[in-house]
Amino acid sequence: MNAGGKQLVRPVILSGGGGTRLWPLSRMGAPKQFLPILNDESLLQSTVKRTTGDMFSDPIVVTGEEQRFFVANQLEEIGLAPAAILLEPAPRNTAPAIALAALCAANLGDELILVLPSDHVIEHVSAFTDAVAAASASALDGHIVTFGIQPTAPTSGYGYIEATQVEPGQAVRKIRRFIEKPDGERAAALMATGNCYWNSGMFLMQPSTFLAELERLAPAIAAPVASSMASPTVDGAFLRPDAAQFTQATSESIDYAVMEATELARVIPVDLGWSDVGSWDAVLEASEAGAGGNVLKGDVHVLDVHNSLIRSEADVTVGVVGLSDIVCVMTGDAALIAPLSRTQDVKKLVDAMRLSGHPRADEPQRVYRPWGTYETVDRGERFQTRRLILKPGAQQSLQRHRQRSEHFVIVAGEAEITIDGKTVHLVENQSAFVPAGVPHRIRNIGAEPLHIVEVQSGPYLGEDDIERLADAYGRD
Amino acid sequence: MNAGGKQLVRPVILSGGGGTRLWPLSRMGAPKQFLPILNDESLLQSTVKRTTGDMFSDPIVVTGEEQRFFVANQLEEIGLAPAAILLEPAPRNTAPAIALAALCAANLGDELILVLPSDHVIEHVSAFTDAVAAASASALDGHIVTFGIQPTAPTSGYGYIEATQVEPGQAVRKIRRFIEKPDGERAAALMATGNCYWNSGMFLMQPSTFLAELERLAPAIAAPVASSMASPTVDGAFLRPDAAQFTQATSESIDYAVMEATELARVIPVDLGWSDVGSWDAVLEASEAGAGGNVLKGDVHVLDVHNSLIRSEADVTVGVVGLSDIVCVMTGDAALIAPLSRTQDVKKLVDAMRLSGHPRADEPQRVYRPWGTYETVDRGERFQTRRLILKPGAQQSLQRHRQRSEHFVIVAGEAEITIDGKTVHLVENQSAFVPAGVPHRIRNIGAEPLHIVEVQSGPYLGEDDIERLADAYGRD
Repeated sequence: MNAGGKQLVRPVILSGGGGTRLWPLSRMGAPKQFLPILNDESLLQSTVKRTTGDMFSDPIVVTGEEQRFFVANQLEEIGLAPAAILLEPAPRNTAPAIALAALCAANLGDELILVLPSDHVIEHVSAFTDAVAAASASALDGHIVTFGIQPTAPTSGYGYIEATQVEPGQAVRKIRRFIEKPDGERAAALMATGNCYWNSGMFLMQPSTFLAELERLAPAIAAPVASSMASPTVDGAFLRPDAAQFTQATSESIDYAVMEATELARVIPVDLGWSDVGSWDAVLEASEAGAGGNVLKGDVHVLDVHNSLIRSEADVTVGVVGLSDIVCVMTGDAALIAPLSRTQDVKKLVDAMRLSGHPRADEPQRVYRPWGTYETVDRGERFQTRRLILKPGAQQSLQRHRQRSEHFVIVAGEAEITIDGKTVHLVENQSAFVPAGVPHRIRNIGAEPLHIVEVQSGPYLGEDDIERLADAYGRD
Repeated sequence: MNAGGKQLVRPVILSGGGGTRLWPLSRMGAPKQFLPILNDESLLQSTVKRTTGDMFSDPIVVTGEEQRFFVANQLEEIGLAPAAILLEPAPRNTAPAIALAALCAANLGDELILVLPSDHVIEHVSAFTDAVAAASASALDGHIVTFGIQPTAPTSGYGYIEATQVEPGQAVRKIRRFIEKPDGERAAALMATGNCYWNSGMFLMQPSTFLAELERLAPAIAAPVASSMASPTVDGAFLRPDAAQFTQATSESIDYAVMEATELARVIPVDLGWSDVGSWDAVLEASEAGAGGNVLKGDVHVLDVHNSLIRSEADVTVGVVGLSDIVCVMTGDAALIAPLSRTQDVKKLVDAMRLSGHPRADEPQRVYRPWGTYETVDRGERFQTRRLILKPGAQQSLQRHRQRSEHFVIVAGEAEITIDGKTVHLVENQSAFVPAGVPHRIRNIGAEPLHIVEVQSGPYLGEDDIERLADAYGRD
């Protein structure tokens, strides 16, 4: 596989999508893949770190414009430089996204691409690496190999792949058919066959194999995506395909556009401790339970509670008495309570909140910016208080606000603040005032994160009252 | 009753006690009776306002040292001046507390005292007033009349009073016996007799009747309490009995010390829409339910939720899916989730938290001071951010802190801030800085509440780092 240290496999990480089923933790403005769902790393970080062995080259990540700084920052945090961050001009499902990456990989001269969702969990990392190695011969032979997860329960939440019988000496098997998410009874029947596997959405193949099949089976995707990548705009690691071309591609999944039709599909059965952690019950399932079968996180206190997931994700004390099979998740600004059996319906609740225009359906409490994060910790009629955290070396845009003044108190770290052209150095326990209308910029000039308490004062405090005069991150 | 406008009845409001069964809303530092449990008024305020008819004179309130500003502020808010606020030097249960009030009332020359817990709900206020009027003849005849609530369900959470048969022409009845909280089966049997009533802890009597019976039946209470009131310390409306004397009184309830033994006990059966709102299920019971039998308060969103109490008491969005008969209460710093059937056990949970030293077992998020309130809205390693709200005309003590500096930003109202002897006037969007060690004082000089964002910065931020150099409220 790795003769002479050759990096045979290019990881392609698909990092679009929202994940409202894990609300209130996951929201459109801070989706699941960027959050530490199971440990201290985000799911994206864990996914990327799974592919840092000798076999793998640096990843290509496919994501959206809105999420580009999440991806860049999170890779930087784990010290990994991506080969490219491809920015989909609009969401068009997996087939166009993978086509973008395949074209990029073909340009890089890659032999194989390994397509991975960014928001899944794999417990057995070496089994995963072994499976990729085992599948590579078939992929190099011109097959599109998907990873079929050995079912551990007759789950109705996943699609299934039915394989043909084992062929002696072959790691991979042909695919008889793809089965959409079945009901519970049908799922049990599928599992009983011994030939059915969960469809994990992971694929190993040559870029050329995929692109040729896409062209043959889904020209309405292949042609516009190819045109969009003819001369993409390069912006550091970010690669922007042509939007006018790309958006002409039909929106289809790789399963529907290619896998269900091609003769080249193969499946490798694997046992990886895999989960799509698609809802809170799956998060409980994928977590290591403690006393009473409970998974507790944060400042949580229980009495007669069993088989439950209770997470306090902020400085909130949670007490639960006399409940079983329940999930309670608290952030600083929102709470969810539901029985495990109803966690799929969290999406319905959030959809209804979104329809009614509730900002917290989609906006997270902690807002991520290229320079760091901010959280609103208090607000009143004509003010709001925030905590800003700037990364070392980071700076906000040079900006001004028409309707609000800002008071800054440095509470940790070292800042350089420019106000109306004058620059001051400020450390912990020093403050600055920026009147409305005055251009200003904050920069972290220390080696540690810079924490600032910001009090905004004025008649209008909306995020759209910002005029960016200059920005290191290319934002308007 | 009220011939010539004579104010016959002196209300005596008992306002000690904690009420941890309504955690996280009610805590030792902000107990139930001072909170708006059912509407915008606190239970204490509703209790006091129930006794402002012609028949009643200004109330005597019995409370503890820690809670004196709650009582004073809340009465002031509703524009009511108490006859006295008696401060128990230590909690000694109801018999000594009522003895204090009876002595005070006797000094004032009162004919009757009406003893009322401060934390109960009465829906039918005119029925209550009528019952007091109806009972007064018996009380003036030298009886101690208690109010027996017509049971609406065989509740095991209350004590019961068994009355003798109705005597023609008598509003009140003799008492056969007092029954401690029974189990469910026994409660049903008691209710079936038609002669059993809930013990509401409300009493109407002449001060002299009670004091004479107390002296006869419980001299170990009567003597030390009488001595403690021989020359109490007067501090505005606050009256402080002698602590050394008072604490020698045995700790007993009025039921145990007097009612169960005296021949003078009578009961008047009443139907008042009464509740002791002693636990969250009782709060649901006492509230007006909306769709699905739910009582929802604040930013709450439900899907398939029935017969449940869901309250968001802060800027927290609460989503609940697929649950029935449940209570969820969120404050800004804590959350409780329990089935209605287990709300009595909230106390156990809080007791366990207290044992483990958890500050939020007893400390409320909003801390009440004589000048107003503060809430901690954010905190880090070496800082914390608070919102202060000073009442019009109020001022903090002249104080200094050894280890922390303070940054103040005025976000609403008008302040006078004295720093190291110099006084400045500040309005919205202005700020001030107080270095560690420097004496300072904030005063609200406007007509509206003064809101200040305070950022404390320093190595130690405990409440005990305060040296009060002068205080308008007589605090050390």
